[in-house]
Amino acid sequence: MPSLQVDLQRIKSDILSLAEIGRDPVDHGIYRMAFTDADMEGKRWLTDQIDAAGLPHWTDGAANISSKVEGASDAPEILIGSHIDTVPCAGALDGTLGVIVGLECLRCLREAKVSLERTIELVAFSDEEGRFGGMFGSQSVCGEINPEKLATMTDMNGVRLEDELVRHGLDPMGALDAARNPETIEGYLELHIEQGPVLDRIGKPVGIVDEITGLFTWSVRFKGEANHAGTTPMNMRNDAFMGLADFAHEIPRILDENGSDRSRATIGKAQILPGATNTVPGLVEFSLDVRDTSDEVLDELATAFRKALSAIARRRHLMFEFEQKSYIAPVKCSKKMINALTNQSSLLGLDSNTMPSGAAHDAQIMGRMVPVGMIFVPSKGGQSHSPSEWTAWADIEAGANVMLNTLVQLAS
Amino acid sequence: MPSLQVDLQRIKSDILSLAEIGRDPVDHGIYRMAFTDADMEGKRWLTDQIDAAGLPHWTDGAANISSKVEGASDAPEILIGSHIDTVPCAGALDGTLGVIVGLECLRCLREAKVSLERTIELVAFSDEEGRFGGMFGSQSVCGEINPEKLATMTDMNGVRLEDELVRHGLDPMGALDAARNPETIEGYLELHIEQGPVLDRIGKPVGIVDEITGLFTWSVRFKGEANHAGTTPMNMRNDAFMGLADFAHEIPRILDENGSDRSRATIGKAQILPGATNTVPGLVEFSLDVRDTSDEVLDELATAFRKALSAIARRRHLMFEFEQKSYIAPVKCSKKMINALTNQSSLLGLDSNTMPSGAAHDAQIMGRMVPVGMIFVPSKGGQSHSPSEWTAWADIEAGANVMLNTLVQLAS
Repeated sequence: MPSLQVDLQRIKSDILSLAEIGRDPVDHGIYRMAFTDADMEGKRWLTDQIDAAGLPHWTDGAANISSKVEGASDAPEILIGSHIDTVPCAGALDGTLGVIVGLECLRCLREAKVSLERTIELVAFSDEEGRFGGMFGSQSVCGEINPEKLATMTDMNGVRLEDELVRHGLDPMGALDAARNPETIEGYLELHIEQGPVLDRIGKPVGIVDEITGLFTWSVRFKGEANHAGTTPMNMRNDAFMGLADFAHEIPRILDENGSDRSRATIGKAQILPGATNTVPGLVEFSLDVRDTSDEVLDELATAFRKALSAIARRRHLMFEFEQKSYIAPVKCSKKMINALTNQSSLLGLDSNTMPSGAAHDAQIMGRMVPVGMIFVPSKGGQSHSPSEWTAWADIEAGANVMLNTLVQLAS
Repeated sequence: MPSLQVDLQRIKSDILSLAEIGRDPVDHGIYRMAFTDADMEGKRWLTDQIDAAGLPHWTDGAANISSKVEGASDAPEILIGSHIDTVPCAGALDGTLGVIVGLECLRCLREAKVSLERTIELVAFSDEEGRFGGMFGSQSVCGEINPEKLATMTDMNGVRLEDELVRHGLDPMGALDAARNPETIEGYLELHIEQGPVLDRIGKPVGIVDEITGLFTWSVRFKGEANHAGTTPMNMRNDAFMGLADFAHEIPRILDENGSDRSRATIGKAQILPGATNTVPGLVEFSLDVRDTSDEVLDELATAFRKALSAIARRRHLMFEFEQKSYIAPVKCSKKMINALTNQSSLLGLDSNTMPSGAAHDAQIMGRMVPVGMIFVPSKGGQSHSPSEWTAWADIEAGANVMLNTLVQLAS
């Protein structure tokens, strides 16, 4: 069978039209944070498009929106999807691209009248970006939401998720009904922008994800003594900032000794107190974000970072404490999906790159329950979560065609 | 002649009573920032004490308060002093101690009826601490204030010095009349708390300052690229914070190679942007405060720090820029004063320590015009500019006795 082709014009038109919903006229960023009015308008826009394509749609208790093309048998279905909610001041693609490409795949399959054994279902998940913590929709589908979690989910302004759901006429407890039976699902496939520089730098249009990175984040404090920068000799200081500088300096060594080429470690924020030019810092509080695709490597990195903190604290006469703020286990993608994606890329004559996903996605949650696969398309300059986020139309078309033909292969 | 002795009870009583003016009942800090109502009340308190001692007083155009004990001749006079304005949330000593010890010296000289050749004048300088920039009183005395400077001096809330002076019934242009003729002044002597840990650690009651440190402060920016902490491989980052960490790591080497044992370098504040746990920092802006008692050493340090910034920026693919925010030249204390102070300490049986002043004081400004000397008393735990600032009464008494007898030696 010859490869199917998506209609790039329809994808373009959908992306540009959804990009108008929640767009700020001043900074040109898109503000469609989960369960805001703009997000709800986006959800209505999506169901309108599904209607217009003559496809069915329904919404589960977590406000995830689904559509599907029925298969001939009741064999476990293939799920595809992503999310249309955004971070504040977002670009037009991110999760939106995966949802729109998914919709285009359904349209193509319906029009091409391909006979598939398995049903293919599109899901647009709620709150992937984390206004209320992140991955709310996919966690609900995986049965990871419970009443206590629901009751404590608030956004950074203290708005409760339950109140926001009620405001939109939704039943907060509905999320508990969204859990799906994994035996009805063959696997989950997600197309997403890479959000990193790799495909753009190496000039390949398609990335095939083999592993989704796990991560831990720590909040670390070094406590020393604030002193006068002029009157305190260098050897009488307990300079908390210099403790942080020592620690940052150890990062490359620790990654070299304990990490893999997929390891990342980042100090993304730091507060230095009291924070005066003429005062030796008495306290620093900083974040550490460490990622790898292997649980064992993450464990070894955690041990090495802990030892480094402890040694530096002793050497510089500082107190230190750290708190793990989050932990997400790495997920391996399904060999079957990787093979199907690789096969279809090659049939389409596309140069693909097998690579890890350094960011978390709905696929990471779904991967705890069912086999998953991911397709990346290049992010220009590695940019994402900003109005400058972009992917060449040709690369979007390439990625969408890989998705479409992989679905046919997996569902046949 | 046997040594004179101050009356510690009077010093105690003065310190404790002035400490009530501007004290916050909640945090116990003293808030007598220059030209606030509390500072003006402090100034009135001081003139009342001078009156009570039967001494004359007058106020110059910069609101510096003076008193004196007349000498027998019209030989150039000896000036002593410090300041009674405070930083916000200050302790009871800092400059206040020097003014009160100076007043006690005048009282003792008057009571002892010692016949001195030279007049001894006490000055309590205005705004040493810098509500409007710092050293306003001593700069006025040294003729370093001009109408443009006056017109542009504002506090951190935008209040203009000129308006604040007018509010207190003072003539802003008066500061221009405060300049003194250096030929009328033999030298300036200041007692101050050390504000550092050295005397406290080595257990000596008196420090004799030989040099007052000079300093430069820079504001430095490293500009890289903000990127996703998960999707950006370590070798594709332009991490601005890691540039700062590299730079901080070079400080000990740069001081070892180019500095003296009196050199200090401090990174006291830093802002990391965008400042999110999962984002590689794209921008850091930080302060560098570098001090030494030698101009040549300061020059060499500046060159070495510039080279380090430049090399790190190249290596990490960052842009860098720096701006010198301030420069204060080091000042050498007068050999004659150092010798007199050393001699009197030894006659009093006190163990003194010759040392630099790492902080700036009115003596630094006065040192540009006339010979200067400084006496330090120990700061418990090196603390200052906080309610925990303290000096043992015995050490205060020791320092005051050195001051008193040195005045007799220098004025005889």
